[in-house]
Amino acid sequence: MSEKLEEVGERGLIERIRERFKEKVPFLEAGAGADDCAVVDFDALKGACLTEVKGKKAGKGKAREACKMLVTTDMLLKSSHFPEGITPFQMGWSVVAVNLSDIAAMGARPLLLTVAIGLPEGTEISFFDEILRGISACCEKYQTVVVGGDIVKSAEMTFSGTCIGFATHPLRRKGAKVGDFVCVTGTLGDAALGMKVVRGEIKLRDALASYAKRALFQPEPRVREGLLIASSGYATAMIDISDGLAISLAELAAQNGVGFEIWEESVPVSEALKACEISKSERRELVFHFGGDYELLFTADASILEDNKTLEMLKSEAKVSIIGRVVPKERGIYVKDKSGKKEQIAERGYQHF
Amino acid sequence: MSEKLEEVGERGLIERIRERFKEKVPFLEAGAGADDCAVVDFDALKGACLTEVKGKKAGKGKAREACKMLVTTDMLLKSSHFPEGITPFQMGWSVVAVNLSDIAAMGARPLLLTVAIGLPEGTEISFFDEILRGISACCEKYQTVVVGGDIVKSAEMTFSGTCIGFATHPLRRKGAKVGDFVCVTGTLGDAALGMKVVRGEIKLRDALASYAKRALFQPEPRVREGLLIASSGYATAMIDISDGLAISLAELAAQNGVGFEIWEESVPVSEALKACEISKSERRELVFHFGGDYELLFTADASILEDNKTLEMLKSEAKVSIIGRVVPKERGIYVKDKSGKKEQIAERGYQHF
Repeated sequence: MSEKLEEVGERGLIERIRERFKEKVPFLEAGAGADDCAVVDFDALKGACLTEVKGKKAGKGKAREACKMLVTTDMLLKSSHFPEGITPFQMGWSVVAVNLSDIAAMGARPLLLTVAIGLPEGTEISFFDEILRGISACCEKYQTVVVGGDIVKSAEMTFSGTCIGFATHPLRRKGAKVGDFVCVTGTLGDAALGMKVVRGEIKLRDALASYAKRALFQPEPRVREGLLIASSGYATAMIDISDGLAISLAELAAQNGVGFEIWEESVPVSEALKACEISKSERRELVFHFGGDYELLFTADASILEDNKTLEMLKSEAKVSIIGRVVPKERGIYVKDKSGKKEQIAERGYQHF
Repeated sequence: MSEKLEEVGERGLIERIRERFKEKVPFLEAGAGADDCAVVDFDALKGACLTEVKGKKAGKGKAREACKMLVTTDMLLKSSHFPEGITPFQMGWSVVAVNLSDIAAMGARPLLLTVAIGLPEGTEISFFDEILRGISACCEKYQTVVVGGDIVKSAEMTFSGTCIGFATHPLRRKGAKVGDFVCVTGTLGDAALGMKVVRGEIKLRDALASYAKRALFQPEPRVREGLLIASSGYATAMIDISDGLAISLAELAAQNGVGFEIWEESVPVSEALKACEISKSERRELVFHFGGDYELLFTADASILEDNKTLEMLKSEAKVSIIGRVVPKERGIYVKDKSGKKEQIAERGYQHF
């Protein structure tokens, strides 16, 4: 029989957190659980941040010396955010991934994270440890340090993360202009497909089913991709598409006073999605509206076409696809297929309220 | 009839957050809700931080130029953290106050805050607005800027805050040594008394009842006090006592390998608590174990007695009382009354699991 949380007690749980996240990084004077707050050496941090970014190629000479700090927070609840069948490891992974994705969406580098966790009484310690292992794994992969945490009793499993990142030239949502290309990283609709597979609504052969389920349960934040896109010097605006491509396009349209033409056949989809026998409208639903894909959507100055080297680098290293063009606001947001037929894209996706 | 959250929708709610926290501070390039993350100018921030602290008198020449960043997170749930009868304004206030208290406990200055809120479907917009007003009021009082937020649907009301603060010389929990004085700010047991009043277990005249209820429902983080204590140069270790004096003493004892002698009659209590006809043991329960007092507990080098000016300043400006002495570990943690009778203090207080 596994121990329950209340048998270990709050201080025992915090000790477990402290043990797992006992990091040795030069800028961290006191880590998670060591004191009332984590203590970070501001100057060492800045040094770390600048070194990191200077190591990258800064395209088009746009890199600035000034260092910006980025802060974001996201709360996940079992009932509204986690699909049936997710493991505690994947829950821990996800709370990190969604926060890192917001940092990635500004072309920044995540560095510090806090996580507060609410768990029901009676939760087994092994379950809690798996959550911590998931948090740890995602943080390690993306070189982020857990510097604080809290653990409380909650009828519903609740995860709240806050991430602090740094950038020399953060990419904002505002900046897109008519004539820019519209680009995305990775493939779209995989998380939606994963949900259909889990629900038994779509059958796929094992490898493809695993791929889709992983996209749903254990999303990868596009940190490296975001940094590459930002440092290319061509991106004019960026956002993540976790609430769905349609919602994110609408957000960029509103912020920039523009419209979008999306080329349907250019929207990248995975082998798994290609293997599905589904209608065009169903596919559009998965790709544009379902959400859960932690890819990046950005606009790029049209001059990128003349810089083949950078474009090829972005395609190969950041899996970037050009999927459309920024158009005047009056034309709205629409998808155009190869026959030239246009259809407006409804602003519909994942909304929490 | 007031509108419900779902009638306004997530984006409408975020717009409300953005409106309320649209701050104009020189170091904030993008505030809450403006983009994927808040964008903070690192150099301007450091400038703000250093200017602020330099403006204070740094006692004993201990001030260092280096600036440290502090990070803390705390999650509050209605069922386990909020007493019956708390208003939505006070809920918002509290999530800020508990996070600021952790920053204060290191003698640091809070600067940035993120808040994630989970609310049940059907919550009225006026209730949500009151929460935001409470967050805003506490932040304004303590000059902290809300830079990020999230709003999700949750069966249970859930609040998660993360605060970023700065200090030139943060005060850790470790540092106390035998012979140091034990000191606290303010008066102890007021939150516990407030709970007794709310439950109808203790009757007090109106003004005192209001005082006690306010201590419970709307605690004040001791930010200014923490800064004064840290900059005095005499404090050797500090912690907040929100989980109760007994737990906090035990924590300091464990961190420093020491014991504590607490002088019962020196422990400061309010007029309200003095007015209660309760037994000595009941009073001890309220003062040592109940928790909910967001006061600071610190140890001070004994040489502070020779610096009357600083001691008087701390007493008058930070409401500091000397309540005991750090003793060798073997003597444990005990309270001594004026007759000289000693009694061990049990390590018992507020624990979340």
